[in-house]
Amino acid sequence: MFIALDAMGGDNAPQSNVEGAVLFAKEYKTGVYLVGDENILREELKKAGGEGLPIEIVHAPQIIGMDEPPSIAVRKKRNSSMYIAAKLVREGKAQAFVSAGNTGAAMAVSKFVVGAAEGIERPGIAVAFPTKKGKPTVLIDVGANVDCKPKHLVYFAVMGHTYIKEILKITDNPKIGILSIGEEEGKGNELVKDTYPLLKGTNLNFVGNAEGRDIFTGDFDVIVCDGFVGNVVLKTSESLGTIIVEMIKEEVKKSLITKIGALLMLPALKRFKKKADFAEYGGAPLLGTKGTCIITHGRADAKAIKNALKVASEFEKTHFNDKLKENIKNLLPEQILLNGKVA
Amino acid sequence: MFIALDAMGGDNAPQSNVEGAVLFAKEYKTGVYLVGDENILREELKKAGGEGLPIEIVHAPQIIGMDEPPSIAVRKKRNSSMYIAAKLVREGKAQAFVSAGNTGAAMAVSKFVVGAAEGIERPGIAVAFPTKKGKPTVLIDVGANVDCKPKHLVYFAVMGHTYIKEILKITDNPKIGILSIGEEEGKGNELVKDTYPLLKGTNLNFVGNAEGRDIFTGDFDVIVCDGFVGNVVLKTSESLGTIIVEMIKEEVKKSLITKIGALLMLPALKRFKKKADFAEYGGAPLLGTKGTCIITHGRADAKAIKNALKVASEFEKTHFNDKLKENIKNLLPEQILLNGKVA
Repeated sequence: MFIALDAMGGDNAPQSNVEGAVLFAKEYKTGVYLVGDENILREELKKAGGEGLPIEIVHAPQIIGMDEPPSIAVRKKRNSSMYIAAKLVREGKAQAFVSAGNTGAAMAVSKFVVGAAEGIERPGIAVAFPTKKGKPTVLIDVGANVDCKPKHLVYFAVMGHTYIKEILKITDNPKIGILSIGEEEGKGNELVKDTYPLLKGTNLNFVGNAEGRDIFTGDFDVIVCDGFVGNVVLKTSESLGTIIVEMIKEEVKKSLITKIGALLMLPALKRFKKKADFAEYGGAPLLGTKGTCIITHGRADAKAIKNALKVASEFEKTHFNDKLKENIKNLLPEQILLNGKVA
Repeated sequence: MFIALDAMGGDNAPQSNVEGAVLFAKEYKTGVYLVGDENILREELKKAGGEGLPIEIVHAPQIIGMDEPPSIAVRKKRNSSMYIAAKLVREGKAQAFVSAGNTGAAMAVSKFVVGAAEGIERPGIAVAFPTKKGKPTVLIDVGANVDCKPKHLVYFAVMGHTYIKEILKITDNPKIGILSIGEEEGKGNELVKDTYPLLKGTNLNFVGNAEGRDIFTGDFDVIVCDGFVGNVVLKTSESLGTIIVEMIKEEVKKSLITKIGALLMLPALKRFKKKADFAEYGGAPLLGTKGTCIITHGRADAKAIKNALKVASEFEKTHFNDKLKENIKNLLPEQILLNGKVA
């Protein structure tokens, strides 16, 4: 097995990416393609002690900037580390693609370069949110599909189910909800109202509407939504988390007493941060693509990169796509499976 | 001027509601109708020292429970304190309606009993979010309209503009954004893409797409979105805020040192809580209704009720609806004003 790593993507690239690849290759004896500037990567690899490991460098002269629009990554810069890493998967040379680069671009490249798996119309990006109960809740889709049809949300539910069961290994019968604005059936926008009966008609453990607040309670294992709403929720949550911590810090600075208090509280705050870290679960996978695609945080350090590579290898080892295909067949009724019959 | 207060709605009703009304009537010499169980309210009013103030009790035998669906409040329980308070506005006996009860029900009652103002198709509920910059960002609509057309979002923008300028008095030329999932024009779902050019064609200070993270940065004064997305954002944010604080508390409990630390940090945490309190701005108004409708938090104490009554009176004193009407005329181009031409 080989995993193609976008070695130039992310705030700490290429150093952390290379170090992460070395840690991973050492521990799991699995191959990594480091994709990026050959000269730079060769040097970084030497510094990180990567000799004798199954790590190969694949040259890519361009880099996708953190602020460049996804369309550039897909259509223009076809010699970027991101594009070439994804192409290795499309060509069957690598089995998985990992990037800590520009999220929108990585999503677009995964979708358009790696491509959808057989039988999947719309791959969906899944994020594991930390919850009160300790175990995560998976929200899908958080941005790969802006306007969705009911059928797509049903497929997201099966993807989320398979992810929870096979990769996160939390439960064999995940509780599935649909994101809405009221608990009762019949509450929500057109999309939710049309999707609800379809989900009810599947063999999934569908428990009904989930509200915004339910993302963090841990009462659901999977919550499905369209990629527009999911992306807004993801960005709102990440930003609110950061800002709450910043605001508390600022308030604390105002007196010596509170500063001492904060110092004493430090261990608790650190434990909390670890618990609440979206990156703990090894990045966000784009589910339903031909090969595995993992998008991890721009801030990823070596450990996070290693973690993302490990999750990517888990997808391959557990034959995620075969399991997903099986689940689609077993959990969805005929009228959803037949393309076109259900919009 | 008389304000109709749903005296039975909210976690601390009727005591806090009555006390809040007394505080308000004393300080601002403005009339309040206390709507609810006559006997209970008479006793509470006596306890709160409400004699000699312009407070009148209006009997209502029913109460809307915090978990009852909005449809019950509008169609079945027409003798509830909430319904009768709203009816006082519809009949012109009161100028404003304030409730701390069941939010969904209060929203529905405001919309269907008080009704839309002349020229307004869809009233929208506005919430002031605390931001890093100290001044709030107003998100509208957070739940009154589940499926929206581009035109409705344009009207929400004018409502938000008028609210920031006339009531919150933050700036005369509020920066308006539309909630989307990417900064550049052309990013977003169908609704956003169709609304963007319309907003560009107005005389509003429209600055483009806002992302989820921008809700808390303070870079925008008003962010418009459909009520489905807005409600999900509101509930996600409230819940995340609460859960972060709970998780920190739990971590803190684990050792004596961190407990002492937390104690020393208390003043800073209290200041933070005040800054981050969604209720600080006196509740959420439903903008574009015939009379003023303010929905305040279920947890509202006497001070919060007084605050909500004060904001309600501000709406009346500043002739908010006249200003809104003027702004619609002055800020929107002809083709949006003419009903039906722009969907």
